[in-house]
Amino acid sequence: MDWPIKYRLEKKDSRTLARAGEIVTTRGTYQTPMFMPVGTQATVKSMSNGDLKSLGAGIILVNTYHMWVRPGENVVKKAGGLHQFMNWDQPILTDSGGFQAFSLADLRNFTEEGIKFKNHLSGDEMFMSPEVSIKVQNDLDSDIMMSLDILEPFYSDHDQMKKAVERTSRWAERGLNQHLKTGLPDQGLFGIVQGGGHRDLREQSARDLTSMDFAGYSIGGLSVGETKDEMNEVLSYTTPILPENKPRYLMGVGTADSLIDGVIRGVDIFDCVLPTRIARNGTAMTHHGRVVIKNAKYHEDFSPLDLECDCDTCRNYSRAYIRSLFSNHEILGIRLVSYHNLYFLTHLMRQVRQAILDDNLLEFRQEFFEKYGFNKKNAKNF
Amino acid sequence: MDWPIKYRLEKKDSRTLARAGEIVTTRGTYQTPMFMPVGTQATVKSMSNGDLKSLGAGIILVNTYHMWVRPGENVVKKAGGLHQFMNWDQPILTDSGGFQAFSLADLRNFTEEGIKFKNHLSGDEMFMSPEVSIKVQNDLDSDIMMSLDILEPFYSDHDQMKKAVERTSRWAERGLNQHLKTGLPDQGLFGIVQGGGHRDLREQSARDLTSMDFAGYSIGGLSVGETKDEMNEVLSYTTPILPENKPRYLMGVGTADSLIDGVIRGVDIFDCVLPTRIARNGTAMTHHGRVVIKNAKYHEDFSPLDLECDCDTCRNYSRAYIRSLFSNHEILGIRLVSYHNLYFLTHLMRQVRQAILDDNLLEFRQEFFEKYGFNKKNAKNF
Repeated sequence: MDWPIKYRLEKKDSRTLARAGEIVTTRGTYQTPMFMPVGTQATVKSMSNGDLKSLGAGIILVNTYHMWVRPGENVVKKAGGLHQFMNWDQPILTDSGGFQAFSLADLRNFTEEGIKFKNHLSGDEMFMSPEVSIKVQNDLDSDIMMSLDILEPFYSDHDQMKKAVERTSRWAERGLNQHLKTGLPDQGLFGIVQGGGHRDLREQSARDLTSMDFAGYSIGGLSVGETKDEMNEVLSYTTPILPENKPRYLMGVGTADSLIDGVIRGVDIFDCVLPTRIARNGTAMTHHGRVVIKNAKYHEDFSPLDLECDCDTCRNYSRAYIRSLFSNHEILGIRLVSYHNLYFLTHLMRQVRQAILDDNLLEFRQEFFEKYGFNKKNAKNF
Repeated sequence: MDWPIKYRLEKKDSRTLARAGEIVTTRGTYQTPMFMPVGTQATVKSMSNGDLKSLGAGIILVNTYHMWVRPGENVVKKAGGLHQFMNWDQPILTDSGGFQAFSLADLRNFTEEGIKFKNHLSGDEMFMSPEVSIKVQNDLDSDIMMSLDILEPFYSDHDQMKKAVERTSRWAERGLNQHLKTGLPDQGLFGIVQGGGHRDLREQSARDLTSMDFAGYSIGGLSVGETKDEMNEVLSYTTPILPENKPRYLMGVGTADSLIDGVIRGVDIFDCVLPTRIARNGTAMTHHGRVVIKNAKYHEDFSPLDLECDCDTCRNYSRAYIRSLFSNHEILGIRLVSYHNLYFLTHLMRQVRQAILDDNLLEFRQEFFEKYGFNKKNAKNF
């Protein structure tokens, strides 16, 4: 298929699976590896669109379930789509809505056909199927859409996981067929590779999905309680069986070390609520580990959150001031730390990209890990 | 005295007491009439300094009591003063701290010497006197400082009010003497005219204070429960007895109609928490009256908050989107409406200034009042 979402490979790292490239959309071309801020309810919490652009965000993620439940995808459609609704002219990625239907809603019934549940706000009975998920995402007019998949726990046994993988493949195909009927020309649909920690099932899932020719491939079912080593192992054998000419997206991962280790294993795109979620408690990601700004030791600390950061927050505000904002429950505190954390991860991805281009990714990783305070063993053993 | 805060009269209105001018500070010259956003705890709630500049704020107000109690004026002093602490390079006006000592704290003792109270956070015993108020404001290094005054209820009888006015004058003199010892060269001190609704006492207060030669004069004890007519009457006889070459500041007033009617009675500067406070509940000030964005009727309303406004919020976001932000308790909603409301009042002051220069202030007032929905009687009778 000639999808409007394309991937251009720029350089493969000589010693790892890492790659520098670009993702091409009808709303511009953006460099990868990339971290996507999460705008759950059509807003990246506390950030304006101007903030997101100034910190270097490319694509942002919006949750389909939330838009569907409130204000309703029909309202968004009437507004002219999500881009118009939230005034964001760069690309938007929407998830399938399945994760929230599983985790937030009161689940009623779960069959081959789809998922019946009561929504978490009104209690209204709703029905989510692969077709409904795609139709809603079509109405939202996101640039990158996700297929509805089955979320099986990482440690499920082979039989259980095999059933989940096979249903995920059938649902992916149903979603693709729906998109061919109701999709918009700027939209690309991704399939989601599942299979937990079972290598043969990850391979089966990837084979099924690549045979259907999606615009890109997501790696799902990770960052759900498995160890980092287990996650890294899955990535190491999964990305090599995905097509080189399509983008690869690791869902829900947002720590600095996991981002770097994911890139090293061939991932292009990441998303996570982590940077904005911990910011709301006053925790900043810095080059020297996390800073918990509420700690009394920052009361008279007039240095920036992160001495090595050149973001607006770090150029303009001190730890003492930001601590005072948090002590007083002032919104600006959340905003300043959210901005910094999102800048930290988007900037990290730009540094990682440069390291790939400069052929020194592993050296960059080791230096970063040691400074950040990950243990030496982790830093040196890749 | 040769204060670093000066007032330059540009034009007096031919039919009212209104005047267009400039307030000169060591941190720039700003046009009056002016509305000052309130940054209670060294932050105008939900706004960044960049936002404040882009919406046209000149001077902002910070509350001395809050800085004194947390983080402590010593921390602010160590940071290099309030400007450094909060990274605001335009002028800052601080109040005396008396209002919060009266209203927030557990008041213990109130004498000629000063006010003993327990602070509202730690319960620590604290002592506020005219000298302490000035010393704290000196440490904060605000550009415009207020004398500690006595807050007597508007309807207090003549005897009671006379005592309050006379003590306010003595306290003003003590504060001025303190400033001569510990003040900084960029700081100007204002006296506060009290007297409630007693004309002779307002005159006595103004006479006492002008004999001491302050950098400017505040009008206090208004917007505390009296009617708008009563407030306007007090202004009408108070501003004419204040020196023409000094700025006049009406404390704590922030509705559009009161701002216009205050200017018409010779006021140059206003402040109020109203625009940001009502924004946090989703109430927008618009040219056609208030918009309560949580109302269901805005669910699919894709027009801006205020059709006649060209602020960032109104140029970029719809009522439906902002309503969705408030429905979801998203911080960005508060931020967008706060920005609009502050823009609305600062822009209104620019329009009023232009109307003075164009000699059509009363016509502007009538048109504004009628559109805003104030009753016709109010609109036509000045």
